Amino acid sequence: MLKSSVLNTLFKTEYSIVQAGMVWVSGAKLAAAASKAGCLGLIGAGSMKPELLKEHLIKAKALGAQSLGVNIPLLYHGAEEQIEVALKQGVKIFFTSAGSPKKFTPMLKAKGCIVVHVCSTPEQAIKCETAGCDAVVAEGFEAGGHNGIDEITTMVLIPQVVDAVKIPVIAAGGIGSGRQIAAAYALGASAVQIGTRFVATKESSAHENFKNKIINSHPGETKLMMKSLTPVRLMKNNFFKQVQELESRCASADELQALLGKGRAKLGMLDGDMDNGELEIGQVCAQIRNIPSVEQCVQDLVREYQQAITKLS
Amino acid sequence: MLKSSVLNTLFKTEYSIVQAGMVWVSGAKLAAAASKAGCLGLIGAGSMKPELLKEHLIKAKALGAQSLGVNIPLLYHGAEEQIEVALKQGVKIFFTSAGSPKKFTPMLKAKGCIVVHVCSTPEQAIKCETAGCDAVVAEGFEAGGHNGIDEITTMVLIPQVVDAVKIPVIAAGGIGSGRQIAAAYALGASAVQIGTRFVATKESSAHENFKNKIINSHPGETKLMMKSLTPVRLMKNNFFKQVQELESRCASADELQALLGKGRAKLGMLDGDMDNGELEIGQVCAQIRNIPSVEQCVQDLVREYQQAITKLS
Repeated sequence: MLKSSVLNTLFKTEYSIVQAGMVWVSGAKLAAAASKAGCLGLIGAGSMKPELLKEHLIKAKALGAQSLGVNIPLLYHGAEEQIEVALKQGVKIFFTSAGSPKKFTPMLKAKGCIVVHVCSTPEQAIKCETAGCDAVVAEGFEAGGHNGIDEITTMVLIPQVVDAVKIPVIAAGGIGSGRQIAAAYALGASAVQIGTRFVATKESSAHENFKNKIINSHPGETKLMMKSLTPVRLMKNNFFKQVQELESRCASADELQALLGKGRAKLGMLDGDMDNGELEIGQVCAQIRNIPSVEQCVQDLVREYQQAITKLS
Repeated sequence: MLKSSVLNTLFKTEYSIVQAGMVWVSGAKLAAAASKAGCLGLIGAGSMKPELLKEHLIKAKALGAQSLGVNIPLLYHGAEEQIEVALKQGVKIFFTSAGSPKKFTPMLKAKGCIVVHVCSTPEQAIKCETAGCDAVVAEGFEAGGHNGIDEITTMVLIPQVVDAVKIPVIAAGGIGSGRQIAAAYALGASAVQIGTRFVATKESSAHENFKNKIINSHPGETKLMMKSLTPVRLMKNNFFKQVQELESRCASADELQALLGKGRAKLGMLDGDMDNGELEIGQVCAQIRNIPSVEQCVQDLVREYQQAITKLS
């Protein structure tokens, strides 16, 4: 399955593994390394101005990226400009999220691109299919970063999405080991999207402090917060405690927004301020205990996956 | 795996499937049917006075239950008396939950019983192993009814618990189809505990209204509520809305307790008041679309499981 999914053909990858596009983490280095290791590498455009996105795309190709795409969150301003830049750089694979799949899919399909949209319910998956998407990422409650309001977990979500649509389903949320990849396939997924595991690799642009916090994290060290704004899974730190304090007294969305301010995620994830930064990460962080190269990481995932499959059959 | 797990030997079952002990749902009829279908049948003692538990145990045996156990939530008064009744009736398999595994495990082990405790974190699983439990149920966030405070999902929890303890792990939460059983095995579980799927069977004592509400439910129709009391996953109805209203203005635990009152779960699940009752159910309800006999249900699960495994290998 890992080597023969319909998505390997679509993405021209050896493995049906997508390295998630993540703010402040997945630039040219990570995406190129993921591509060279046999996966689809995604550049996380959410934290990039168009000019920076252009630089990363040029650099990723210079580093030898072949299976390369961009993740464009549609909730930020400038998504259209980012798409234009990516098209000019010859990008053919677009992962869009946090917005309507109808907005850009027809235009991108008309230009011969592959379009995948992220969903967190079967209803949203049907909308993606209707909009013409080639595949969907179905992302469960355990995933890091922004998250659906219905809190449906990967275990429950994947079979429901697989049954709801005919296009291939990429499972995301809680997948950080080969056993979890095997489980995602058992649930009916055609591929997996992996975020958190790739944050703690040599080539990710996450700050060393953040990588070290991940490999020392405990189960229960993340929680879905700020549900009155946009739900986001955060790692516990001083900033988290301030959010928790506001939420425990039902503070308004405005108060939460004021606390969040601007640049919190960059402060934590890129600049390494573990106290005051916003640390977006998935529940699966607690099982990550090393910071390997992406190549080593992918080899470990594939080996564990094969062990899990052998044990099952 | 489904027919050859270490737990089939321990529980003397054909399949490594445990029918969960659930309040107001799993009496003698359901447990006996589950046992006869090749699973371990559990009587949910949480909603029974000792005298009623005795009646159900006698009836289950009269109905031909062989692999029979009881689930005893330790958070209610009277757990000790329930255990005494069960021991007098010759019960040898005890599933305990919602309390310390140290409380009754040594006494039950000294009497030659098999003891399994429910946990929702790897740390709790280690405590169960230290207390002498034979196995643990590791229950994820998506499960119905009472739930852990760390909100760790089945996908993330199972591999972490499997790595943390040497005793066998029974996966629970989000398992209502053969694909999900296969996924649980891929994650490293030795068996599965299934609740919600068995609520909507002919032999469950849930009210017909509740069964019908389940087979007409939508994704996102449950939510984990009352976190300031004991977190519990509820189906959305009028009572749910009242809880939500209180929680949206940060009402005190006392206010929530006053709204909850007494007998809410019985009112909904057994008496069939879909407006005012407390409806405890798992996220997986949205994929359940029929009310088969337990035998048919188990045959479907096994067939789907085998299809999933064949597809994987």
